[in-house]
Amino acid sequence: MSKGIVSRAQDYSQWYNDLVIKGALADYSAVRGCMVIKPYGFRLWENMRDVLDKMFKDTGHQNAYFPLFVPKSLFEAEEKNAEGFAKECAVVTHYRLKTDPENRGKLIVDPEAKLEEELVVRPTSEAIIWNTYKDWIQSYRDLPLLINQWANVVRWEMRTRLFLRTAEFLWQEGHTAHATAEEAVEETEKMLEVYATFVEEYMALPVIRGVKTASERFAGAEDTYCIEALMQDGKALQAGTSHFLGQNFAKAFDVKFLTKENRQEYVWATSWGVSTRLIGALVMAHSDDEGLVLPPRIAPLQVVIVPIYKGEEQKKKVDEAAALLHGDLKKLGLSVKYDDSENTRPGWKFAEHELRGVPVRVAIGARDLEAGVVEIARRDTKEKQTVPLADAAASINDLLENIQQSLFNRAKAYRDAHITEVNSWEEFETTLNEKGGFVAAHWDGTAETEEQIKEKTKATIRCIPLNNNKETGACVLTGNPSTQRVLFARAY
Amino acid sequence: MSKGIVSRAQDYSQWYNDLVIKGALADYSAVRGCMVIKPYGFRLWENMRDVLDKMFKDTGHQNAYFPLFVPKSLFEAEEKNAEGFAKECAVVTHYRLKTDPENRGKLIVDPEAKLEEELVVRPTSEAIIWNTYKDWIQSYRDLPLLINQWANVVRWEMRTRLFLRTAEFLWQEGHTAHATAEEAVEETEKMLEVYATFVEEYMALPVIRGVKTASERFAGAEDTYCIEALMQDGKALQAGTSHFLGQNFAKAFDVKFLTKENRQEYVWATSWGVSTRLIGALVMAHSDDEGLVLPPRIAPLQVVIVPIYKGEEQKKKVDEAAALLHGDLKKLGLSVKYDDSENTRPGWKFAEHELRGVPVRVAIGARDLEAGVVEIARRDTKEKQTVPLADAAASINDLLENIQQSLFNRAKAYRDAHITEVNSWEEFETTLNEKGGFVAAHWDGTAETEEQIKEKTKATIRCIPLNNNKETGACVLTGNPSTQRVLFARAY
Repeated sequence: MSKGIVSRAQDYSQWYNDLVIKGALADYSAVRGCMVIKPYGFRLWENMRDVLDKMFKDTGHQNAYFPLFVPKSLFEAEEKNAEGFAKECAVVTHYRLKTDPENRGKLIVDPEAKLEEELVVRPTSEAIIWNTYKDWIQSYRDLPLLINQWANVVRWEMRTRLFLRTAEFLWQEGHTAHATAEEAVEETEKMLEVYATFVEEYMALPVIRGVKTASERFAGAEDTYCIEALMQDGKALQAGTSHFLGQNFAKAFDVKFLTKENRQEYVWATSWGVSTRLIGALVMAHSDDEGLVLPPRIAPLQVVIVPIYKGEEQKKKVDEAAALLHGDLKKLGLSVKYDDSENTRPGWKFAEHELRGVPVRVAIGARDLEAGVVEIARRDTKEKQTVPLADAAASINDLLENIQQSLFNRAKAYRDAHITEVNSWEEFETTLNEKGGFVAAHWDGTAETEEQIKEKTKATIRCIPLNNNKETGACVLTGNPSTQRVLFARAY
Repeated sequence: MSKGIVSRAQDYSQWYNDLVIKGALADYSAVRGCMVIKPYGFRLWENMRDVLDKMFKDTGHQNAYFPLFVPKSLFEAEEKNAEGFAKECAVVTHYRLKTDPENRGKLIVDPEAKLEEELVVRPTSEAIIWNTYKDWIQSYRDLPLLINQWANVVRWEMRTRLFLRTAEFLWQEGHTAHATAEEAVEETEKMLEVYATFVEEYMALPVIRGVKTASERFAGAEDTYCIEALMQDGKALQAGTSHFLGQNFAKAFDVKFLTKENRQEYVWATSWGVSTRLIGALVMAHSDDEGLVLPPRIAPLQVVIVPIYKGEEQKKKVDEAAALLHGDLKKLGLSVKYDDSENTRPGWKFAEHELRGVPVRVAIGARDLEAGVVEIARRDTKEKQTVPLADAAASINDLLENIQQSLFNRAKAYRDAHITEVNSWEEFETTLNEKGGFVAAHWDGTAETEEQIKEKTKATIRCIPLNNNKETGACVLTGNPSTQRVLFARAY
């Protein structure tokens, strides 16, 4: 097959789009800014979702489902949150279509079916959920309330990119309620750590845990914690956020509880989310010019077996050996496919599975079989080895673990090599422009300086790392005193 | 606890609402016609979804995800489908809110952010999916295409009821494409059988498999197959549908494929779906005046253990025995909870778990423990038995199977006793009014008669059962000749 994908060096952005579309993860749709997630991409999302869902349940959370629509009057109740999302809201104004009297067979919006109050398609669900929590929380006995929702949300972005920024996307949003600020902060940090663990151990992507500056906070939050990852082009990507919401939503929706001491107090809140955006991060972090490279623990397909033979007699022997190996791999709990389609030749299949990022490919050839061996190829390094058929299943199982670890190590080495401490404005700009990655620089702590740096360089403060070293210094732009370095980067 | 639910005899409809709300399955929301699915109800849905999802995958289907919005021009492409859903569509007309200049802190729809083309919030996804399939299907090698989607859909119903009829609901929708009509019909029937198997074996609810008359068909289908269940008030409920769509959508969206013989032909289609409505059926079919009765195989919680003791010394012994039993039940793969909260007394807990329909309740009393026994109560018949602690786990496991089977048998006996053959109009009306259930009557096969019967009695033809006996007779209303009996009922 001709893959028809451009190289990273040639056009990184086009390379990414090519991989997503030709790797069969997703496609554009007829709806502006919305994508179709194809079966292969959706299986990847299912694998990620299942792991996360178990982690949420293991930390005491339950799933629930809240309405897609938020009445405008609820949406605007928490002012900062409303202000933050108002500019990108899809709004339902009517509830009926009718036949166009001037054009039979065509439909128009029925002007008589105008809603009394417009409905916002949820860009995030704090408003509708906290309006519900008002009825669910009366006393300290109802707390903590630990709920998660898997849902679609809509944010009318002007510039969209498959997975990274789409008008509709899939995500999960946790919304918890607590009796004290301390407990809510603890929850915020705990869920950040759940995200970091997931992204590092399953997506093989190292992240920096940190907090956002005030200007980068979620609209309506007191504090936004985040995990930041680094892509191969040196740009950062926010992979997940966890917000301490203080009592902002409790006050906006009047959610109070009776304390053990018999007082009425406002409830403390958190919210946290990751989305299908993670798939974009996954693609950008590990893949190469031949196609996708997917970490074994979440790959939709972990092993593919390709037969190589001439004539029916050879085919029969290869089929038999493949069936045995297939069975052994299944017993190990692996997802495996025997690609014995006769429409395409082995070389074409190799290229196809390479493009799709299947971690391990096994070639079973009639000649190799006579020697009792098969060929195993790993997708990440493209190394091949010949192993005895009898040991193949165990070797493949080990190899998958090896690939998982080595993807992480490679990404971590790259990331670590791209955190650069700079101490002058010149160094700051040079590093951003020539090397990319995270730039660790002193900042005077003001929103004005942050904004100026952004305007000059397009770099934003990605985060103030958790447990950051305190270190006195001078702001890289203004020279004003600073107490710590923060991480700047250009970002997706 | 005071349950505060009315009895079925008193007010069946209120009884249903009470169970859904007080049984913690769902609640009303601030959005007209939309509900909040609470954690207990959502867990039930997750259990149902997981079983169905596995059944779909085992029959060769893959999941994918398509946009929430359908541009109006695509929506209207298949005329019958559009006509069928136009009257209940939520329509997005704008993509931005702005601050109300006359009322700071309030938002209004920004008139400058009007969409060029309105977007319909999907009431079903044939249009957007078939518009996508156009790009995915070129040749017979691309067929069959077997795809399912789990999604939320919106139908602006005027009269809504929790689970049974809500403006937004959760469902799955299968959308498949085939090379021949025969293959598509086979798929339609196969998926009907998957639904029937699921509803009977997991929900313990017997169903009648049948086809709809032309007037009851899905808008845009050539044939609609259905499964029909019977509720305790004698009304029928359509529990799932599977549609043979012919070439209607292929023609509307110009989806052709190259046959093996090198001809261009339109593709054949099916679609099939079940929704959160099934939860309404589950509640109505099995529950009683004390609360929910849930079949063990899909119950969110299968076993609850309640301790009974006085003083710390007794508590310690009871806790120990409970921990052992809890562990044994977990090992059997059961979901079990030890309800040792100290805020409420055992009697209150018994009532609470009865209300929530937990299939088996175990009471561990300090005195019983001295005799080495515990008390096991089944929710469905409320029978209790005392068993040796050592045998308890095995007994409970057997009991759960027994409950599952006996719920099905009870529902089937009731259903079978409520299929009544009638041969005159008087009998027809009397049976409907006094007995309820399915009325098996001759019908002359015309839409006019069907409509007249509906107007006179509110009964509709639920289905023509599959493999129906051919039997000549006279239409129960018109006396015109008929070749078979069909099933009438009043329905949800």
